[in-house]
Amino acid sequence: MLGLLLDFPKQCQAAKAIADNARILFENRKFDKIVFAGLGGSAIGGDLVKSYVFSECRIPISVIREYVLPAYVDASTLVFLASYSGNTEETLSAYRDAKEKGATLIAISSDGALKELANTDKVTFIEVPKGLPPRCALGNLSIIPLCVLAKLGLIKDVGPSINQTARILEELKERNLNPGIGEKDNIAKSVALRLFNKFAVIYSASVHFDVCATRFRGQIAENSKALGSSHLFPEMNHNEIVGWQNPKKLLKNLAVVMLRDDLMHPRVALRMDITRDIIKKEGVNIIEIWSRGDSLLSRIFSLIYIGDFVSYYLAILYAIDP
Amino acid sequence: MLGLLLDFPKQCQAAKAIADNARILFENRKFDKIVFAGLGGSAIGGDLVKSYVFSECRIPISVIREYVLPAYVDASTLVFLASYSGNTEETLSAYRDAKEKGATLIAISSDGALKELANTDKVTFIEVPKGLPPRCALGNLSIIPLCVLAKLGLIKDVGPSINQTARILEELKERNLNPGIGEKDNIAKSVALRLFNKFAVIYSASVHFDVCATRFRGQIAENSKALGSSHLFPEMNHNEIVGWQNPKKLLKNLAVVMLRDDLMHPRVALRMDITRDIIKKEGVNIIEIWSRGDSLLSRIFSLIYIGDFVSYYLAILYAIDP
Repeated sequence: MLGLLLDFPKQCQAAKAIADNARILFENRKFDKIVFAGLGGSAIGGDLVKSYVFSECRIPISVIREYVLPAYVDASTLVFLASYSGNTEETLSAYRDAKEKGATLIAISSDGALKELANTDKVTFIEVPKGLPPRCALGNLSIIPLCVLAKLGLIKDVGPSINQTARILEELKERNLNPGIGEKDNIAKSVALRLFNKFAVIYSASVHFDVCATRFRGQIAENSKALGSSHLFPEMNHNEIVGWQNPKKLLKNLAVVMLRDDLMHPRVALRMDITRDIIKKEGVNIIEIWSRGDSLLSRIFSLIYIGDFVSYYLAILYAIDP
Repeated sequence: MLGLLLDFPKQCQAAKAIADNARILFENRKFDKIVFAGLGGSAIGGDLVKSYVFSECRIPISVIREYVLPAYVDASTLVFLASYSGNTEETLSAYRDAKEKGATLIAISSDGALKELANTDKVTFIEVPKGLPPRCALGNLSIIPLCVLAKLGLIKDVGPSINQTARILEELKERNLNPGIGEKDNIAKSVALRLFNKFAVIYSASVHFDVCATRFRGQIAENSKALGSSHLFPEMNHNEIVGWQNPKKLLKNLAVVMLRDDLMHPRVALRMDITRDIIKKEGVNIIEIWSRGDSLLSRIFSLIYIGDFVSYYLAILYAIDP
């Protein structure tokens, strides 16, 4: 796991090369809907794409983690089917559903039945390198579809952002995440220590950074074998904030992680500040993690990368092999 | 709160009458996207609509809880703007964004700035009865948009389902929820007792019943002033299930609520059975709640109605005025 984490910035750049070389087997089709079908580690790439394109893509995109697709999937829908293993039963079922509905399909996997189906059906297929746990393939499973959307002219070129992101992640790793860095300067080690033996409550913002909260919670479950919950601003201020009263005896066993970014909506930033102070009064440990870099892509990925390392160190604290 | 809960089945029927009498100020427009903008108690109606139409509506629908709308909102988008008070700052901001993007707007509120804006702009406006906390207006805020979609020909007539749902909820209330019913037959009282002093973890399925999990968690926060988390099947099996190992000393302070329905995908039902047994082995209290009625609408609403009563009784156990 550690080796894969350390290699992650390289994976992001390699993913761009895979996308550049991919053969898209359809041309000049017009789409008015994009659906990303997958589960777990193979779905989170879709979440990242959706978060990234919020303010840019003129076509709605949904991530569906299910056996069946919504009724609106039709001949003018582009459906990404991502299953790292190629054998996820829900995704294979969604593949059949998408095909039946006449959608244009792009299958992404390292192998398995999905690869076979795509080849038999002459469906666009993008093969990603084998041998990773699916959750470690996020670079491939997010950057490849982003590059495909750019190739199709649905979003701007992401190439420069990918290079910048890889550079920012390398720097972040060397300075603040690497096991060689002591607890004082190691963000991930210090956050993991504060989450140890606590139930993690992850908060972020619903525009662009919702994927970071989903990923953090998922990685804590998958790597650290620990439970957590997540919620988003500003919605959280309209319900969960008033829940911070009960069960009284449990509140001190929770720890809050706020995933923050300088460019969040100013009212969202203010809401996060106020909420932090309210929860602090209940004696709850609050950890704020800030994004890095200039591009939106590096800001999303830096929060994810820090969270991935946190889940790794937390696993070690729980004496678990991540 | 109790009076409002008891009146809820009537509100659902009254909502249908409000929708029947509503004047839609646009005709024969074609939409290819639907967006529901709102926050908290005014957004959950959009979640319900989205869950209900999953297998029926040929147009994608999103629920956006934010100051800004996604880039894909344009002149062929129908945007519902729901703010029960009419003064929710995010929704007013989303209104301006939707207008700027040239979308067709339907505003729903009981009063406030949203009503004024809609009247000034000659935007379709549907007024709902005043005087409720927003979370108690779910009948209005879900059934009215559903009826509007049916009027526009985007989904089938929901009238018969609404009548049947109101009947099912009345029966459920009389037999299993009413304060006059003792703990033995009162589902909501017995669930509340099992959730008391526990952190609630709510699970449901992502097709049709995701709204029930969101609502349950939100009502526990808003009515019972207590924290919980939620997750959905089958996705939960791809991450959270392995998290049920840590923090060890906290596991027994959690209680799981599974919101179930006989017509869920058979593989989802099987996954829920297996997961229940895995979690039980950790010594965790598991509560299963089953939906009622024949129609999809009554099945969704019955789970919500039981959860609403649970949050009410749980508030009383916490000595809080819901």
